[in-house]
Amino acid sequence: MESAPEEAQTQGREGPASGYTRWALKIEYDGTGLVGWQKQNNGLSVQELLEEAASRLVGDAPVMSATAGRTDAGVHASAMVVQLDLPCHERLDARQIRDGISFHLKPHRVAVLEAAAAAEGWHARFSALSRRYRYTILNRPTRPVMDADHVWHVRRPLDACAMHEAAQTLLGRHDFSSFRAAACQANSPIRTLDRLDVTRCGMHIHIDVEARSFLHHQVRNLAGSLHLVGSGQWPVSKLREVLDSCDRRKAGPTAPSEGLCLVGVGYAQDPFG
Amino acid sequence: MESAPEEAQTQGREGPASGYTRWALKIEYDGTGLVGWQKQNNGLSVQELLEEAASRLVGDAPVMSATAGRTDAGVHASAMVVQLDLPCHERLDARQIRDGISFHLKPHRVAVLEAAAAAEGWHARFSALSRRYRYTILNRPTRPVMDADHVWHVRRPLDACAMHEAAQTLLGRHDFSSFRAAACQANSPIRTLDRLDVTRCGMHIHIDVEARSFLHHQVRNLAGSLHLVGSGQWPVSKLREVLDSCDRRKAGPTAPSEGLCLVGVGYAQDPFG
Repeated sequence: MESAPEEAQTQGREGPASGYTRWALKIEYDGTGLVGWQKQNNGLSVQELLEEAASRLVGDAPVMSATAGRTDAGVHASAMVVQLDLPCHERLDARQIRDGISFHLKPHRVAVLEAAAAAEGWHARFSALSRRYRYTILNRPTRPVMDADHVWHVRRPLDACAMHEAAQTLLGRHDFSSFRAAACQANSPIRTLDRLDVTRCGMHIHIDVEARSFLHHQVRNLAGSLHLVGSGQWPVSKLREVLDSCDRRKAGPTAPSEGLCLVGVGYAQDPFG
Repeated sequence: MESAPEEAQTQGREGPASGYTRWALKIEYDGTGLVGWQKQNNGLSVQELLEEAASRLVGDAPVMSATAGRTDAGVHASAMVVQLDLPCHERLDARQIRDGISFHLKPHRVAVLEAAAAAEGWHARFSALSRRYRYTILNRPTRPVMDADHVWHVRRPLDACAMHEAAQTLLGRHDFSSFRAAACQANSPIRTLDRLDVTRCGMHIHIDVEARSFLHHQVRNLAGSLHLVGSGQWPVSKLREVLDSCDRRKAGPTAPSEGLCLVGVGYAQDPFG
């Protein structure tokens, strides 16, 4: 869970309401200027845009959605998986749903990449076995141009090898309280980090992370602390010390939202396969 | 030469005017909404933005610039090389020039990546030995989101291997009249293509091309014809037939500007090395 408490989820584990069919959608969005996935009254959310577009496709009938990852304001997704419950009587096929919703989403930077009828009992969030995020740093003196709003701009040269070495000490099952937002409402701070790779590609540094689920701000807090290792302000060994302290005040600041992108969600069976 | 006639160049081969020092700059720009490199009276150009920003850095003194590649409206550059003649008396160092001009270029999507004093006799355009462009196609049913304005969106599935095979038949020194814009004012249609690689990376297809110089619209015309091979409308052998015909009417349409990006300029000696 990257962003909001379980209780705020608009739907529980139950299947679609009577007269509705559940669809799995893979969506891409540019989070710039949006308040995040979740509907809020202070700005446009991905959920609101998606539900409104879907509703227009089905003659303004109400539709319900839930997501595998409730991303924060400014966070992007290249392959988010969501569920959408649509009235059965519309008899739309997967292609019509993909193209029709994408059409009604214009001119917003949100679009449907794939659609498929969901298997019995499938839930976008509760059936998900893994989430993958990529955090991207543009590491050069000059501000971003072609990838403005899609990277964290860090002027000071970073040592990606040191960052990667430190990252490996966090793999596995731990209490991640040190990297958890104060607002996080998860029941437990225990998470299992399956991947935390740091690689440099020219002036870009990619932090690729995978876990079954994440605490609120966990990826951005990890990126913020890895940055301190990369800039030499922390020795490699410090990251694990901070983890073991279970004290958020010991960790680095939260890295900005614009560098974060959800890049994949894993299920026992690929909903689009 | 990707875009404009030699005669339209604002400077000839001569060195900087008396009292001026020549600087080499590597710049990045997002061409969206700009009229291209060259100053024009119908909109904002990269050259106008760059010269105005540089002029502000040197107390509003006049400055002169020239580029290695005069890109068209909507075309991008990740590493364009330009020359800038600045008044000597300002005594700015390379870092002050890079950061100062980038500062004054805000909020436009143009910035200076590197600056270096130019060697005696160096000219951004006439000393250049090669230009490298990347043309990017997003090949999927759904419109672009994260890379909107930076790719050509092609819904129909393309065979990148067939495109690459056809591309190899154009390598070397040829009369490229079939891929030359009607407005091209180069003295000769003969060019030597050193590289024309087509590779698929997920839903993206990259066309990487390198030559000493290009005719007006040559890269976009090549991309437009390669697209016809990729979609199966042309057999692989057709591309070379079109080249040999030396007839622009035989070739495919010009691919849109937003997929094109200048990615490098080669010199006998790296001006920033």
